[in-house]
Amino acid sequence: MVEAKRILLKERPVGFPNHETFQFETVLVPEPDEGQVRLKALYISVDPYMRGRMSDQKSYVAPYEVGQPITGGVVAEVTATNSDKFQLGDLVLGELAWQTEQLAQDRYLQKLDPTLAPLPTFLGVLGMTGLTAYFGLLDIGDPKDGETVVVSGGAGAVGTAVGQIAKIKGARAVGIAGSEEKCRYLVEELGFDSAVNYKSDTFRDQLKAACPSGVDVYFDNVGGTVSDNVMSLINDGARIPLCGQIALYNNTKLDMGPRIQTLILIHRALMKGFIVSDYRSRFGEGMKELATWVKEGKLTARETVVEGFDAVPDAFLGLFSGENIGKSVVKVADLSSR
Amino acid sequence: MVEAKRILLKERPVGFPNHETFQFETVLVPEPDEGQVRLKALYISVDPYMRGRMSDQKSYVAPYEVGQPITGGVVAEVTATNSDKFQLGDLVLGELAWQTEQLAQDRYLQKLDPTLAPLPTFLGVLGMTGLTAYFGLLDIGDPKDGETVVVSGGAGAVGTAVGQIAKIKGARAVGIAGSEEKCRYLVEELGFDSAVNYKSDTFRDQLKAACPSGVDVYFDNVGGTVSDNVMSLINDGARIPLCGQIALYNNTKLDMGPRIQTLILIHRALMKGFIVSDYRSRFGEGMKELATWVKEGKLTARETVVEGFDAVPDAFLGLFSGENIGKSVVKVADLSSR
Repeated sequence: MVEAKRILLKERPVGFPNHETFQFETVLVPEPDEGQVRLKALYISVDPYMRGRMSDQKSYVAPYEVGQPITGGVVAEVTATNSDKFQLGDLVLGELAWQTEQLAQDRYLQKLDPTLAPLPTFLGVLGMTGLTAYFGLLDIGDPKDGETVVVSGGAGAVGTAVGQIAKIKGARAVGIAGSEEKCRYLVEELGFDSAVNYKSDTFRDQLKAACPSGVDVYFDNVGGTVSDNVMSLINDGARIPLCGQIALYNNTKLDMGPRIQTLILIHRALMKGFIVSDYRSRFGEGMKELATWVKEGKLTARETVVEGFDAVPDAFLGLFSGENIGKSVVKVADLSSR
Repeated sequence: MVEAKRILLKERPVGFPNHETFQFETVLVPEPDEGQVRLKALYISVDPYMRGRMSDQKSYVAPYEVGQPITGGVVAEVTATNSDKFQLGDLVLGELAWQTEQLAQDRYLQKLDPTLAPLPTFLGVLGMTGLTAYFGLLDIGDPKDGETVVVSGGAGAVGTAVGQIAKIKGARAVGIAGSEEKCRYLVEELGFDSAVNYKSDTFRDQLKAACPSGVDVYFDNVGGTVSDNVMSLINDGARIPLCGQIALYNNTKLDMGPRIQTLILIHRALMKGFIVSDYRSRFGEGMKELATWVKEGKLTARETVVEGFDAVPDAFLGLFSGENIGKSVVKVADLSSR
């Protein structure tokens, strides 16, 4: 038996989540049964989509249960094993609880090769967020050489990958982000052609200036008024992968805005909502290509790493106040010394 | 020389068009030059999309010019010919002026076989409106056996064809229309499974009851609050061909409504705007299949035929007050006795 801390969903948030949304508790974790391993969490991923799972309304993933642990992507180390698939010290990726030590069935875990990339990268550009950018942009957005790709939430985990993949495909990449610092990061460090601060008073004019030939692909991570402004610039035949609507996750009912159907009709545009698991059968192909780009230095990723299990709620809440650049992960523990 | 009446765009409407939008004038039509024919208009088509062409804003078809004739689909008879392609008395379909007699280049005209169908049908289900329903529904909507297809503007020219083609493909067809009479027509005469009057106080509840398994395909001809109600019922993976937004054509700026991006995302739905000419290369295939269905009695069409050239403006304005059932055409003249 080892003692572990975990985080439960205490109550479903109405509007923005806050500390009342979460409850810490301490539990005892027994030895693994056959086919099980015990895992020590090293890095825990916090992602905007989790807000959706905290509500009980119909959505594309099952809601979390009140009084049960919150789950998500976790990089962990095997600390006890009753499985012939994993040895002590193996590193794995899984959909796991926000919990310092836990049991897991071996068949749901993916073994990681730590020589390929730093561990947080497996929660980012080589994980779900990279695949989300990859399939949403390439399968729905389908950018052509010389076209203009705009991505909102541009400095987020998905957005940074979208812009870089757009560049790899020969398109112009324009990011929308929430601070001058983030905009500089996108242009100077990631090679975006332009980045615009949506908090600026002249956002609309700056966006227009950044897209002199209009917008061919709009990868939408945020929704709301930011998207209203992009939609007014779309070209005929534009493609709009809808990946997230972070501006709306915390609304209790549908927000009002300009009716976009007229624009979609006039421009014969395509808008499609997706979730990365729609592409599960093609994950291998995506990961392989993403890993190649990372290796070639064409695709880089920054992680915002917060330290300590107790910081998980704050790291999650920070996603909605625009504090993070790149993928947000929480470092829970060091690798055991071996 | 023959004398002819024609209708010019007098001024661009702001909001709803009215009689001030149009100006009648009388002109003299000379004999045809080489490669030309002189045509007598028999049936003139009035269509909602023409409202868009009366504005000078960017859209998918070029705007009409102020002081120039309004143009659209016209079935006409050759009354003088200087072309080796057409003989006196031939019947043709073309994009022609709202004008009782006019010259036209032979290469832009399509010869009609009047034994195939009544002449107004060539402006309806065997013409652009039938093809619009065909490609929008089958290419974008792609209804599967047993799925629910909802069509707004259900009693209009496009809507009646959409519902019937949905039935041919094994789907449930639910029409939305603006009167009890229209709803009865859709169910009793065209075989829709259900039809709902959007003017009813209980529209929302009736629509929900008519779609007990939700909405898989929403063929949207109207937009506005009617569409808000349908969107709240879409299933995961829904497809939404956007064909028209008649509720919005007469607005001077984008209307406000609930932001639909959240629904499109949650349900991983697809929305796509289109115009029938996107499918020009496949018109032959579409017409052939439509003609087969008409011949087999699976696809029927009603035309609202108004008599007399002077009635063209009223027939057009009536499209926006929901007066018509099926395709609206104006009968301008009888075939010449030969």
